[in-house]
Amino acid sequence: MGAKNALICLGGGPSPVINASLQGVLERCLAATDKMREVYCASHGIEGVLLEELIDMRQEDPRELARLRSTPASGAIGTCRYKLGAGREEDFDRILEVFKAHDIGYFFYIGGNDSMDTADKVSELARQAGLELVAVGVPKTIDNDLGDEACTIIDHTPGYGSAARYWANLIREVDEENRGICVSECVSVFQAMGRAAGFLTAASRLADPGREMPLQLYLAECSHSLEFLAENVNRQLHESGRCIVVVNEGFDVGDIGARVDGFGHIEYGASQKSACQGVVNYLNSVKLRARGYANCQVPGVLQRCTGVQRSPVDVQEAYEVGLHGADLALAGESGYMATILREPGAAYRVRYDKVPLRVVANSERFLPESWIAENRIDVTDDFVRYAAPLIGEGIAPLEFENGILRFARLERHMTAQRCPKYVPVGMRG
Amino acid sequence: MGAKNALICLGGGPSPVINASLQGVLERCLAATDKMREVYCASHGIEGVLLEELIDMRQEDPRELARLRSTPASGAIGTCRYKLGAGREEDFDRILEVFKAHDIGYFFYIGGNDSMDTADKVSELARQAGLELVAVGVPKTIDNDLGDEACTIIDHTPGYGSAARYWANLIREVDEENRGICVSECVSVFQAMGRAAGFLTAASRLADPGREMPLQLYLAECSHSLEFLAENVNRQLHESGRCIVVVNEGFDVGDIGARVDGFGHIEYGASQKSACQGVVNYLNSVKLRARGYANCQVPGVLQRCTGVQRSPVDVQEAYEVGLHGADLALAGESGYMATILREPGAAYRVRYDKVPLRVVANSERFLPESWIAENRIDVTDDFVRYAAPLIGEGIAPLEFENGILRFARLERHMTAQRCPKYVPVGMRG
Repeated sequence: MGAKNALICLGGGPSPVINASLQGVLERCLAATDKMREVYCASHGIEGVLLEELIDMRQEDPRELARLRSTPASGAIGTCRYKLGAGREEDFDRILEVFKAHDIGYFFYIGGNDSMDTADKVSELARQAGLELVAVGVPKTIDNDLGDEACTIIDHTPGYGSAARYWANLIREVDEENRGICVSECVSVFQAMGRAAGFLTAASRLADPGREMPLQLYLAECSHSLEFLAENVNRQLHESGRCIVVVNEGFDVGDIGARVDGFGHIEYGASQKSACQGVVNYLNSVKLRARGYANCQVPGVLQRCTGVQRSPVDVQEAYEVGLHGADLALAGESGYMATILREPGAAYRVRYDKVPLRVVANSERFLPESWIAENRIDVTDDFVRYAAPLIGEGIAPLEFENGILRFARLERHMTAQRCPKYVPVGMRG
Repeated sequence: MGAKNALICLGGGPSPVINASLQGVLERCLAATDKMREVYCASHGIEGVLLEELIDMRQEDPRELARLRSTPASGAIGTCRYKLGAGREEDFDRILEVFKAHDIGYFFYIGGNDSMDTADKVSELARQAGLELVAVGVPKTIDNDLGDEACTIIDHTPGYGSAARYWANLIREVDEENRGICVSECVSVFQAMGRAAGFLTAASRLADPGREMPLQLYLAECSHSLEFLAENVNRQLHESGRCIVVVNEGFDVGDIGARVDGFGHIEYGASQKSACQGVVNYLNSVKLRARGYANCQVPGVLQRCTGVQRSPVDVQEAYEVGLHGADLALAGESGYMATILREPGAAYRVRYDKVPLRVVANSERFLPESWIAENRIDVTDDFVRYAAPLIGEGIAPLEFENGILRFARLERHMTAQRCPKYVPVGMRG
C-alpha cells in the first residue's frame, strides 16, 4: 500500500486517560510521514465520519498535543454513542464514501466493546468493497468489562486504573469523614458506574485492603435485595456504629424510571430515581439501629472525567497501548485491537499484544466468581492483588492555571469537505 | 493565671482544612509549656467534653501531628453536632465539672456559627461560675456563611477556598466531558451544599471567569422556580446544544421528605429526594429541545472531605488562623474568634484579627445582592475577584502510600477520667 491518510475516532463514554491513548496513536502517525500523509481525527467519533467533519491534526500546535496526556475526558476531539448496524446500511456506504474521498488507508478506533464492534464492521465492509484499509482498535473503558474473565484477551482496560483510584481515594476520604462526625450512627451510600460489571464497585476495597473500614460492596454480579442490604447494614452499625455502602448503578431498587441511550443501554444518570436514592430511602424507612440514618452520594460522570485522581500507571499504559496500536497499523496488521497483558511474577509488568476485533466486539466481562468474597458483599485478596498495581504511586502529571486544571486547547481545523451533505440514519426525522 | 491545661474542640461538619487549623492551635499550645501544662483534644467535640473523653496530645507522635496539615475531614479527633441550650442546662454544669476536674484554663473551639455560639455560652457560664477560662474560637466552614456581607467581621472562612476549588475544577472537568460526548444535547445537573447561602454554588463560576461555558447557577438567595430553570435550560440548549446546571441543595422542588439534624438543620443528603433529582425529573418530563436529556450528580460529602482538591492558600490560612487563635489565648484575650481580613490593594494579602464570639455566634451571611448577576443565574465579576485568590495556585502538599492518601494516624491516648459517669441530655432516652 502506498502512502495513505490516517483517521482516528473516539467512541463511547469518556475516560480520564482516553487522550493519553490518542496521543500515543497520534505521535506515531504524525511521525510516519512515509506511510501516512495526512492524519485526521473525526469530530465526535463515527458521527464525525458520517458528517464528514475531520480535524486536520497536522495543523495543531505540538505543545497543545503534548498536553493531551494530562487532559481527561474527550472534549479535545469528541466522542459519540452512535450505533451502526441493522437498518442503518446507508451509513456504511457513507463511511466508505468518506474514506474514499479522503484516501483513508488507516482507521483507528479508541473505545470499548461497542466501538470495537463498529471498527470490526467497518473493516469487514472495506474488505468486501475491495478498499485497502488497515483497521486497528485501541481499548478504553473505565468499566473494565472488555475481554474474558481469565484476562487472557486483555488484562485490564485503560481508564479502569484511574477510575479505580478515584473510588479508592474517595472511600479513604469518606471513611476519614465518617470517623470524624457525630457519635450518632451514619450510613454513607455511594453509587458506582459499571453497568452489569462490578469492577468499579470492587475498586473501593483498594482503600482498605486490611479490612478495617465498615465497608460493604454491592456488586452487580450478586443481584442482592434491599432486605439483604438492610440486614447487613444493621449488623455493621451494631459492630462499628457506622457503615459505608457502595452499590452498583444497576442495584435493583424497583422501578427507577429508566432512559436508554443510542445503544439501548440504560442511562442511569437520567433515571427518575437513582439506585443510591432507592437504597437510602429504604434504609431510612426501615428501623435502623439507634440514631442511624443513611445519606446519598452519586458522583455520576465525575468518576470518568476527573483529572486529579488519574493513575500514573494508567496514564502511561494508555499512552503506550496507543503507540502499540499505531505500530500494529504501520506493520499492516489489520483487524486487531491492541491489548495489555500482565507478565507472570510478583512484580507488576505488562506487555502489549493484539487480539482480533471480532473476538472483543460486543464481548463482555464480569467480575469472576472467584474474586467475590464468601460473604457476597466484598471481594477477595486475589482481586486486590489484581487491581492494586493499576492505581499507581504518586500523582500523574497535572497542569494548573490560576488553580484551575489546564487542558489541551486544540484549534480543530476542519479539512475541506469533498462529499455531498449527508444526514446519518440515526439523526433523521 | 498560673499554668493551666488547654482543651481543643472541633464542631460541626468536617472541612478539607479543619486539621490545618487544629495543627496551628496545637503547635502553639504544645510549645507554651510555661502557660499550658497539658494539651487535650475532646474526642468528638463537645460530646467528648460531656463524656469526659479527652485525648492527651502530648503523647502523640510529632511526625503524625505534622501530617494533620495534609489530612482533610475530622477523623483524627472527631467532631459533633451536639446542641447546647434551653432544656439542657445540666450539660453546662457537666462541662464546668469536667473543666474543673482537668484544670482547663484555655478552651478552643474550631467550628462554624453554631460552634461559636457554644464557645460563647461556655465562656459566659465559666465567668458566672468564677472559673478562670480563656475561651477562643477558630473559624471553619466550607459554606462561607459566617460573618457579615461586607466582610468586615471576616473576609472568608477556612474551608471555603478548598470547597470552592473542588467546584471550580469539577465544573472545568465536566465541561470537558460534555463538550466531548455525543452531538445529542445534554444537561448535567449538580447539587452543591451551602444550606441557605450560595457561596459554594457561586464558586462554580471560577471554572470559567470568561463565561464561555453553558453554565447556569441557581443560588439559594434567588429562590427560583422549576419553570424558570427549564426556560433557561431550553434557551441554553438552543444556543449551545448543552448546559451545565448547579443548584443549591435547598432549591425548591416540592416535598423532598426532609430529615433534620441535632441543630434542627435539614440533612439534605438524607432526604427522600434530592433537589438535583427533582430538577432532573422536571427537565426530563417537560419538552427539552431536540434529543436533550438531563442527568444527575450529587457529590454530597465529597465536597467537604476531598483532600486532593484542597487550596494551598486555604491550607496555609487555616493553619495561620489557628496559630493566631492560640496567640490570642496566650495573650489572655478571652471571648473572641480569630478572623481573616483582606488587606486593601490589588495583590491578595490577608491579616489576622479577632471579633467577639457574641458577634459571630449564630450570625449568618448570604451572598450579597451586589454579587448576583442581573440575569439571576450567575454571579458578577466582583464575586470572581473576591473568590479567585482563595483557590490558590498549584496543589497543596499531599502524601500517598501505594496510591492511597496517607493521613495522620493518631494514637488517641485518653486521659484518665476523674468525674462520675454522665449521659448528656441529648443522648438520653
